[in-house]
This record gives sequence, structure tokens and C-alpha cells, in this order.
Amino acid sequence: MSVARVQTGVDGLDEMLQGGFPENHIIAVMGSFGTGKTTMAIQFLVEGLRQGEPCIFISLEEDKDSVMKTASSFGWDLTPAVDAKKFGVFKLEPVDAKTTITRIKSELPRFIKSFGAKRVVIDSVSLLNMMFSDENDRRSNLFNLCDLLRSTGATAVLTAEVKDENPRSSRDGLAEYTADGVLLLQADEDRESGEVQLTVRILKMRRTMHSRRIKPYSITEKGVVVHAGAEMF
Amino acid sequence: MSVARVQTGVDGLDEMLQGGFPENHIIAVMGSFGTGKTTMAIQFLVEGLRQGEPCIFISLEEDKDSVMKTASSFGWDLTPAVDAKKFGVFKLEPVDAKTTITRIKSELPRFIKSFGAKRVVIDSVSLLNMMFSDENDRRSNLFNLCDLLRSTGATAVLTAEVKDENPRSSRDGLAEYTADGVLLLQADEDRESGEVQLTVRILKMRRTMHSRRIKPYSITEKGVVVHAGAEMF
Amino acid sequence: MSVARVQTGVDGLDEMLQGGFPENHIIAVMGSFGTGKTTMAIQFLVEGLRQGEPCIFISLEEDKDSVMKTASSFGWDLTPAVDAKKFGVFKLEPVDAKTTITRIKSELPRFIKSFGAKRVVIDSVSLLNMMFSDENDRRSNLFNLCDLLRSTGATAVLTAEVKDENPRSSRDGLAEYTADGVLLLQADEDRESGEVQLTVRILKMRRTMHSRRIKPYSITEKGVVVHAGAEMF
Amino acid sequence: MSVARVQTGVDGLDEMLQGGFPENHIIAVMGSFGTGKTTMAIQFLVEGLRQGEPCIFISLEEDKDSVMKTASSFGWDLTPAVDAKKFGVFKLEPVDAKTTITRIKSELPRFIKSFGAKRVVIDSVSLLNMMFSDENDRRSNLFNLCDLLRSTGATAVLTAEVKDENPRSSRDGLAEYTADGVLLLQADEDRESGEVQLTVRILKMRRTMHSRRIKPYSITEKGVVVHAGAEMF
Amino acid sequence: MSVARVQTGVDGLDEMLQGGFPENHIIAVMGSFGTGKTTMAIQFLVEGLRQGEPCIFISLEEDKDSVMKTASSFGWDLTPAVDAKKFGVFKLEPVDAKTTITRIKSELPRFIKSFGAKRVVIDSVSLLNMMFSDENDRRSNLFNLCDLLRSTGATAVLTAEVKDENPRSSRDGLAEYTADGVLLLQADEDRESGEVQLTVRILKMRRTMHSRRIKPYSITEKGVVVHAGAEMF
Amino acid sequence: MSVARVQTGVDGLDEMLQGGFPENHIIAVMGSFGTGKTTMAIQFLVEGLRQGEPCIFISLEEDKDSVMKTASSFGWDLTPAVDAKKFGVFKLEPVDAKTTITRIKSELPRFIKSFGAKRVVIDSVSLLNMMFSDENDRRSNLFNLCDLLRSTGATAVLTAEVKDENPRSSRDGLAEYTADGVLLLQADEDRESGEVQLTVRILKMRRTMHSRRIKPYSITEKGVVVHAGAEMF
Repeated sequence: MSVARVQTGVDGLDEMLQGGFPENHIIAVMGSFGTGKTTMAIQFLVEGLRQGEPCIFISLEEDKDSVMKTASSFGWDLTPAVDAKKFGVFKLEPVDAKTTITRIKSELPRFIKSFGAKRVVIDSVSLLNMMFSDENDRRSNLFNLCDLLRSTGATAVLTAEVKDENPRSSRDGLAEYTADGVLLLQADEDRESGEVQLTVRILKMRRTMHSRRIKPYSITEKGVVVHAGAEMF
Repeated sequence: MSVARVQTGVDGLDEMLQGGFPENHIIAVMGSFGTGKTTMAIQFLVEGLRQGEPCIFISLEEDKDSVMKTASSFGWDLTPAVDAKKFGVFKLEPVDAKTTITRIKSELPRFIKSFGAKRVVIDSVSLLNMMFSDENDRRSNLFNLCDLLRSTGATAVLTAEVKDENPRSSRDGLAEYTADGVLLLQADEDRESGEVQLTVRILKMRRTMHSRRIKPYSITEKGVVVHAGAEMF
Repeated sequence: MSVARVQTGVDGLDEMLQGGFPENHIIAVMGSFGTGKTTMAIQFLVEGLRQGEPCIFISLEEDKDSVMKTASSFGWDLTPAVDAKKFGVFKLEPVDAKTTITRIKSELPRFIKSFGAKRVVIDSVSLLNMMFSDENDRRSNLFNLCDLLRSTGATAVLTAEVKDENPRSSRDGLAEYTADGVLLLQADEDRESGEVQLTVRILKMRRTMHSRRIKPYSITEKGVVVHAGAEMF
Repeated sequence: MSVARVQTGVDGLDEMLQGGFPENHIIAVMGSFGTGKTTMAIQFLVEGLRQGEPCIFISLEEDKDSVMKTASSFGWDLTPAVDAKKFGVFKLEPVDAKTTITRIKSELPRFIKSFGAKRVVIDSVSLLNMMFSDENDRRSNLFNLCDLLRSTGATAVLTAEVKDENPRSSRDGLAEYTADGVLLLQADEDRESGEVQLTVRILKMRRTMHSRRIKPYSITEKGVVVHAGAEMF
Repeated sequence: MSVARVQTGVDGLDEMLQGGFPENHIIAVMGSFGTGKTTMAIQFLVEGLRQGEPCIFISLEEDKDSVMKTASSFGWDLTPAVDAKKFGVFKLEPVDAKTTITRIKSELPRFIKSFGAKRVVIDSVSLLNMMFSDENDRRSNLFNLCDLLRSTGATAVLTAEVKDENPRSSRDGLAEYTADGVLLLQADEDRESGEVQLTVRILKMRRTMHSRRIKPYSITEKGVVVHAGAEMF
Repeated sequence: MSVARVQTGVDGLDEMLQGGFPENHIIAVMGSFGTGKTTMAIQFLVEGLRQGEPCIFISLEEDKDSVMKTASSFGWDLTPAVDAKKFGVFKLEPVDAKTTITRIKSELPRFIKSFGAKRVVIDSVSLLNMMFSDENDRRSNLFNLCDLLRSTGATAVLTAEVKDENPRSSRDGLAEYTADGVLLLQADEDRESGEVQLTVRILKMRRTMHSRRIKPYSITEKGVVVHAGAEMF
């Protein structure tokens, strides 16, 4: 059985994924700060808009203006999509856990429905999880949110910070388990030359074969580019 | 004394096990996400169905449809078995601990009995354990569940995530102690070439001799294949 | 002063110990799962039975039938000893702390006395300790239990899981302090060849000289064999 | 889209940043004690004063006199700016959390407004975070403070101590996530020669391309100098 | 100023200490189990008895008989000293914290006084500290106990287990701070040969110069022997 | 601007510091036990007395007699200074937090004033911090104490134990942040030769240039000597 694919908008990444993310998958993009997680997530939405798909950005940190400015700094103009009601930003303020849960349960489903979103980004689940001091609340909120996303038929990208002490795990150790796919972004430094090499790998991708090779990528003026054809060294 | 064997359905693995899992054993399959634990578990059930044995998949994450889709992506069609009531999925929603215990104590035994299951999978005990914030609840629930499984005469596979800080222990450090056998799946990366090598080893297997060698395996379009004849390097 | 010795039943181990465990010692056999702790413990009892000594197996996990099956898989038939009331299994169910303490304080002494046991095994103290969520309870229960064992004049083997983060300590960091002797079983892997080498060493043994060398051992069809004469590499 | 730049005042650093910090960014300068974080932060303000921009130093540790003395030790005379009401120090005493929050919410906005500050330094957010024993208070206070800073249009530098066990994370693991940019200062010792090499790198900088190379820097009598043209080794 | 010395009874150790422990010092002998701490402590008392000094052994684990048996296994006969009331064992049962404190405060001073002890051993402070679940109780009890020992004019040896994760710290991280001197015993294994080398070093010794070299030692049939003249390799 | 200097009394150290500690600085001297922190601190006071400056030793562990004995063991006779009321010891008993705070707030200021102390030592802040089980109490007490010291115009040395798991941080991770300067003393062992090399480095020193090189030092019969001219290897 072959699965429908959602192109990522990132050059070279679709190649590693046999054509893109499987449709309706939830993908965790993990990495430490500065590895381009947000850039890759916006790029994923920009690709969707290019294909005429309505897109939503759920933000824990930046507001609509900031997201549009960040996109603009890569040459992506989101204004037409905003005007055409094809692109929306749902801002979750860092308030208390209760308000957050209520908004996710009542407002968010309406918001997603009103756009008919085909692609959704949550940036970042780490900041979302920080709203909850109780681990059970954290887990059940995230699992419910993923259920909600899956039920809409959309394909989703969750950005997640990695743990300090283990850069292969997300900060809360939750997203990688509930997600259908996991991408890991890393910045490896070469102490000799003083250079830093960004690398990406696919740690998990349900229901599809995928490359397990580690590939270098760059953050360019036109967004993230994965050098899928390049060997590491 | 020679023990009866249950073939695993995984090429090369039976060879490491002197013919398969000992009958009525509980086997923990441990590994980080993306190492093919779920694939191996479904494959174990598919082998059972091939031999005419009724099978059950206890799922903490994916529903019946997802499990069937995943199987289908490897070319395994579970529809006939579902229709013949030879295959069932028991979904445990991530709700509260109390409900979970009740369902495990009352519904699950009836469910297993109604199928006369010879093979059972729990995917994953890590997510099951997450239901319990109290460590004692976690332990006694898991131990009781294993007692239940043993009493049915079935052979069972429990998938378990490994600890971040110690990839040879399960997340809760419980399954490997109560299980009769433990398989460890690992993804070792070769930083030089950027390649990742999947390896399997048998850490524990009660009441049978077994290989202690580390063997490479692949996740192919037809499921997991262990290269038991291959040397590591 | 020379101490009386209790032969371990394990080829090569007695040699490392100048003849066996000192009589009335409590020996902690520590190791991760799959290193043969239970096998070595049963073997210690089988040797006792061979010498006509009554033996007791205190089990936290397996029942009498399982213990007998495990022994049988190594060719040791415990049936005659059971029939002759020379061998008994005391099963401690994983229930609450209070019940466990009560059974250890009231039932166990009678049980040991009724057999006149010369050799006792507790498999495992790690699971026993798990019964107690309070560290003080854990400690005082274990210390009292050891006092009880010492007062009977028996020689005892306690199996203990090792800590994930430090394979030279038991899970609770208790048994090695109260025990008179400590054996450490380890599985060291050679990443080059993919092979795993089992090794044993004596970390502590009160009131006797002992070898401090690390020795390889195997788990064979006839139980554990220590290659005391072999050099490691 | 090109962003407006704020020159850092640190030779060589602007070069790594394509001209300076993006305007209105919040920059976390992370490093262990003794790496010159405070020096770099004061230098950033001195550059602002040189360009006629009002500046504010929010201090958790040193009072106005100490800050002026430290500046003076690098040859920077802040007296004229203080007299001209172009430079102000806002001292937050290490008192209780409640008083701290009240002062930040009521006094600080008035203080910033009264100066019309274009550049703000908080030295250090680690000491600020120490005021709060509750992690939620810590997070929401820091996030609110950053919102306040962003709303003023100023460009801000937050100094942050790094974690003992992971010198790439701030002590609280908060500042690097909410900040728009992160600089990491490190003191690497060469055990052979007994020398210590100070290095700087840009871990994150939103909405701008930036160098990812590790560059050596020195603390001279005229402040911090980054050797942007130098190779590491 | 030269300080009076107390010979340790351990061949080679006095040499490292410029003649012995400074009189009235409290010495922590730290090491993991099996490194001969108890042996060295008893040996220290045997040396005292040889010189006609009354000695006391404060035991948390073994009773008088066990201590005498252990001594006897090294050829030291304590019976005459016991009969002459020159040697006493004070057993502290592992009961509750309150009883322990009371016994230490009321009984122990009388016990020490009744013997006029010149040398005191506590074996082990780690087990003593385990009596207290509250860290403050642990600390103040230990500090008070040390004050008591110092006030008697005796020279004391405290055995202490080391931390699993840091073999240079005692389990509670207390004894090494309050003690006047610290000896560290270690068992270093040579994986190549499978041999284990015991080593001793002096980490701290107030008011005296001392060797900082690491020296090998053996546990022989006549007790601990430090090879002070030997080079390590 | 050049700062007034306070000579340390330690040969070679003043050279690394461009003449001594900046006047009125608070210096944390960090190191594990046995690295000579107390010796260096007393030496700092002895130098002050030599220059006619009144000095105070705030002790958490040793009383006046012990401090004088320790000094005497290095040939420093403090009796004349004690008689001339130029040297005082303020002993803080390890009692409860409340009493400690009260004494620090009320008695200590009077004590310092009565001596007109120019140099103050606290030995050790780690033991002082142990008085407080609440982290906030610990921090605010230490910060208040440092404010008190700074207000007196004295130059102060605080000795601090380092963390087990990170020998570059003090046990509580507080002193190095509030102090104006930080010295790190380390004992590095050379496993090959069995020798231990003591080294010192300046990790931080506000308002002055300083060497960042690692220098060897010795503890001699006349106190600590830093070999500032020597290369490490």
C-alpha cells in the first residue's frame, strides 16, 4: 500500500522521505535552539500555501506580526494568504494551565475548522508543555491535542526543544512518542576548524520506508536546504 | 528438558533463539523510537495468524484502523483475520489510572478469552505506565497484567521505550525484570559515514540457551529482517 | 583462624573463594538481567541438596512450578527434594508493604525452621525492596531479614539487580553494605566483534582472602561455569 | 527584507552578525562566570551612549557606583551620561519574589519610559530567576519582562550564567528560548600549555543570517575584542 | 610546631603520614565496599592495644562476636583485651533516629569514659547516617559526634562508603568536611589483565605535611600493607 | 583607572593578580578538601597582620585554638596579634538556621567593628550554607553577608568546597556569582606516576586584568607557594 505524501517545501528532505511526510501524520521536529526548527515549520506552511492549502500556525511565543516578519526575512510574503484567510496564527499566551486547556479545547477546534486547515504547525510544544507543572496534565493535553489534529485530517509539524543532557530526546520526552514521525536537527561543532555543521536525520516515520542517513543542511536566505545527495564527510 | 517454541515471524531471529520464543513467555522488546518495535510486534502476530493462532493487539496509542494501515504498509492484510474474529485490537485510551486499571481487570480478560488468543502484544508498556503517576500503582498493575497474560497460556510481546540516559533500560525499569525475555533494538550511528546501523541482541531469555551476539537487522518493505548469519563489522 | 566453607556448586567459583562461601555468610550476587543470577542461585541450592542439606528458595517473582521448570531446563530435577521436604519455595506476592513485612516476620521464620534450611536464596532483593516506597522501611526490612537469616545459621544468596547508571551498585544501594560478600556479574560487549563476554568478580568477602581477578564465565546447559583458570584476554 | 541593525560596540562581533543585533531583539549572552558577560553588556550600552541613545542597566547584584567603577576600569566614563540623564541603573535587591514582581510591573516601565531607553541590559537573568523558588513564577516573570522590553522598542541584552553540567544551556533553561538571539561565551582550557582560550559563538539569531563559526576573543583594557578574522587553530 | 603522632599499625602508611595520624585527629577512611576499610580500622585499634591504649569500636553492623571473629581471621586475638576491659564494642542497632541520637548523647559518652579510650573507630558513618532521613539531623548528629570525640582527646577513624557516581566523595558528602584527615581507598581494575589494584592516597590531613602520591596496598593474611616505597606503575 | 591592591601573602599569586586582590573585593577560593583553602585563607590574614591590619577569621568548624594551632604548624604565631586585639575568631556553631541568621545580623557587625577589620575570612561558606535547608534562606543570607562585608570596606576571602560532579562550581553554586573574584584550586592526579599536581587559576576577577593561565602550586612548611613563573608541563 502506498501512502499519500505531503511535500515538505524543504529541498532535499522530500527525497529522504520518499516524497514527503505521509498525509495526516504528526511530525515532531526536534533540535536545540538556533537549528532552524521554526524556519522549517514556516517553510512547510509556505509550501502548503503555494499548493493552495489553508494553513495554521499555533504560536506559543511570537505573535502574528513576528511570524510574518520572520517569513518575510526569508522572502516569503504571507500577506496575500492572510488577506485571503488562507493563513492564520493562533497565539497561546503563556498564562495558566487551566486557561490554556480551555482555549485548546474550545477555541482551537473552531479556529482550525474555520480555516479548513490542511497543514498545522505548533511552535513549540516545549513552551506549550511548560504551561503545565503537572506531568499528567502535560501528557494528557498533548495527547488530546494530537488526537484533535489527527481528527481534522491535517498534516502537522510540532517543533520541540531537545533535552540538555540528551540531544536525542525532546525536553519533556513526550512528543517523540505520540508523533508519527520524528526529525532531529543538530549543530555539530568541529573544534579543530571552529566550524559548525548542521545535520538532519529521520529518527522515526510510521508507515513508510525512509532514509536513516545523517545529512547536512544549511539555513540560506531562502530557507532550509537539505543536502540529501551529499555524504557527511 | 526442551521447551516448546513459538516462531517469531522475523527471519533470522528464530535462529538466535534456538527456534523461537519459549511458549508462554513474556518478551519485552526494548528500543528507542524508530527502531521498529511496533513493526516487529505486528510481525509476531502476523506469523501467529499464518499458523492459525488467534491474536490480540493491546494498543495505547493507535486505534484498530491505524494498526491495520501500518500492517498493510508492510503488505500484511489483516482484514480476513478481523472478519474471522481471529484478530482483535484492544484500545486503552490515555485516561486516568483508575479507569485503566478497571478496564484491564474486567474487560481485558473477557476480551482475551473471547478470542482464545495464543499471541498477545502490548504496544507500548511505556505509554501504559505513563497512566500511573504513582510508582507502586505502575509496578503492581504491570505485574498483575503479566500474571494475567501468563495465566492465559499465551505468548506475549511487550514493546518498551528505553531510558534516555541509559539505552539498555526501559523507561520505567520494570518490564525487563518481570519479563521472561528481553530483546534490545538499537540504532548506532557511524559519524564518519553518516549511516545508521540497526542492531538487535538478546539480553535475557529464561529457560533456554540463546545467542548473546549483537546482530544487524533491517526494516524492509516486508518487515524486520535479522541478519543472523552476518558478523557485525 | 580458618573458616568453614560452603561449596557454591559453580565450577571455578570455589577456587576463587578458597573453597567456597564462608559458612553463615550472606552473599549478594549482583548483575543486570540476563547475567544468570537466578541460575547461579538455584545451582547453589542444587549443590546443597546434593550434600543432603535442606534448602529454601524465597521468590518474589516466580512460583514453585516456574522455579522447578527453570531448574529442570538445566537438567536439575528438584522433584525428589520437594517430595522429601528438603526443598521449599516461599513465594512473596507483590502486594503491599505491610503484608510483606508481616509475612517475613511471622511466616518466614516458621517456614525456614520447618525445613531446617542450611541454604537460603532470595530472588531478588531488588523486587523485595520495590515493595517499599519508603526508604527507611526498605532498609530496616532488609537489615532485619539479614539478621533473621544469620540467626538461623544458614548460608544465603541474595540476587540483586544493578543500578542503571552504575553497574557496580545494586538498585537500592543496600544489599552490598549489609551482605558479607558481594559477587558482580557483568555482560561486557565487544563492539568490534558483536560478541558479549560474561565476567564475574568478587568485590567483597568478609573474613577470608579471595581473588580479586575478573574471570570469564559461561551459562551452559548444565548451569554456570566460571573459567577460573582462564586469563581475560 | 533587511532588518535595521544595532551595533554592539564589540569589535569583530558586528561582523559575525552582518552589522549588529537586529533592532528590538532580545539577546541572551550566556557564559560561565569570568567570561566577560557584564563587560560585554556595559560595552553594548557605552556604544549606545556614543550614538546618543539613552540606556538602562537593570542590575541584580552591583549598584550604580559599582557599575560605574567597572565601566571606568575599562576607560569608559559614564558620569556625563548619568548627569545628562541618558544612563540609569535600576537596582533589584535580592528580596522576596512578590516585591520583585511588583517593582518589575510598576516601577520598571516608568523607569524605562522616563529615560526613553533604546538599549537595556539585565545583569543577570540568572540572579533574577533565583528570586523565584517556583518555576512557573520564574517563567511567567521572565516572559512578561521580555514582552515589556519588546513593547518599548528597545534592543536588550540579558546576561545569563550557564548550567554547571551543560555549558550550552542557561542555568534555568529559559532565557535561550524566549530570547531572539543567543551568544555563548566559553573559556576553554588547554591542559597542555595551561592556557585558557576565550571563545564566542552565535547559537541563535532570529530573522537574520549569521556566522556559526567559533571565534576567539580577548578581554582587553578597552573591553571585549572578538577576533572575527582569526581562525580558531 | 611538630604534632604528636599516633601510629596507624599499617605498614607503609605511617611513612606517608610522617609518622602517623596527628594525635586527636578524626580521620575518614573512605572507599567502596571490599576495599578493606573495616580491616584497616580494626588494625588501627590492634596497634593501640599493642601500645597499651584502651580502644573502642562503635559498630553499626556487626556485633562484638563478629568483630572479634574478623580480627581473629587476621591473627589478632582480642580476647585478652576484652577481658582486661581495654577493648569494647558499642553496637548501634539500625533502629529509629530518635533512639540513635539518645544513645549517642547519653550512653556513648559514659561508654567512652568508662574505657578511657585513646582510639575510637566508627564503622561505618554511612550506615550511621542512614538512620536519619532528614539531612539536617544527619549533619548535626555527625558534627556533634565529632565534637564529642574531639573533646575526649582520642584519635578516631570513621569508615565511610563512597558515592556511586563519584568515588572521591563519601555517600553523604559530610564526613570528609568535618574530618581532620581523609584517606581514600580504591580498587582500580585493569581490563586488559583482569586484575584489580588496590590503591590508597591521602586527600587531606590538617596540620601536617603529607605525601600526595597514590600508593598500592594489599590485604594480606596479617592485615593491610601499604607499599609506600613502590611506584604505581 | 587603577585599583588599590591588597597583597595576598601567597608568593606568586600577587603576580597573577597584577599586585594582589583589588581592595574591598570579596574573593571565593574554591577547591575540594585537602587543596589548602584554609591554609591560603589564614596566610592572607597573616599577611594583613604583618602590614598592621586588623583581621578576623569567621569559622564554621574549628575554634580559636584550632585555628591558632593550624597557623602555628606553618610557623605563624598568632598569639601577639590576639593579645593586641588585632586578630579575632568568630565561631559559628552548627546550630539552627534562625540562630545563625540572628548572630550574623546582630553580633557579627559589632564584632567586625570592634576590631576595625581590614581583612576577613569565612571558612567555609559551604558549611555556612549547610545551616540552611531552604535554598532561599541560603541565598539571601549569603548575599546579605556579602553586603555587610562590602560595607565595612574590608577585603574578604570565602573558602568554598566544590561540587562533586563539577569541580568548577561551588557546592551551592552561589558564592562564585556574588563574589568579585574566584580562585580555583585543583588536585590533578597523574595516574601514570601516581603523583598529584596542585594547580590554581583565576576564574573571575572584577575590575582588573588578570592572568588566565593555570599555574602549579605547593603547600610547603611555610604555607602555599604559587609557581607563577613555571609552565604547567
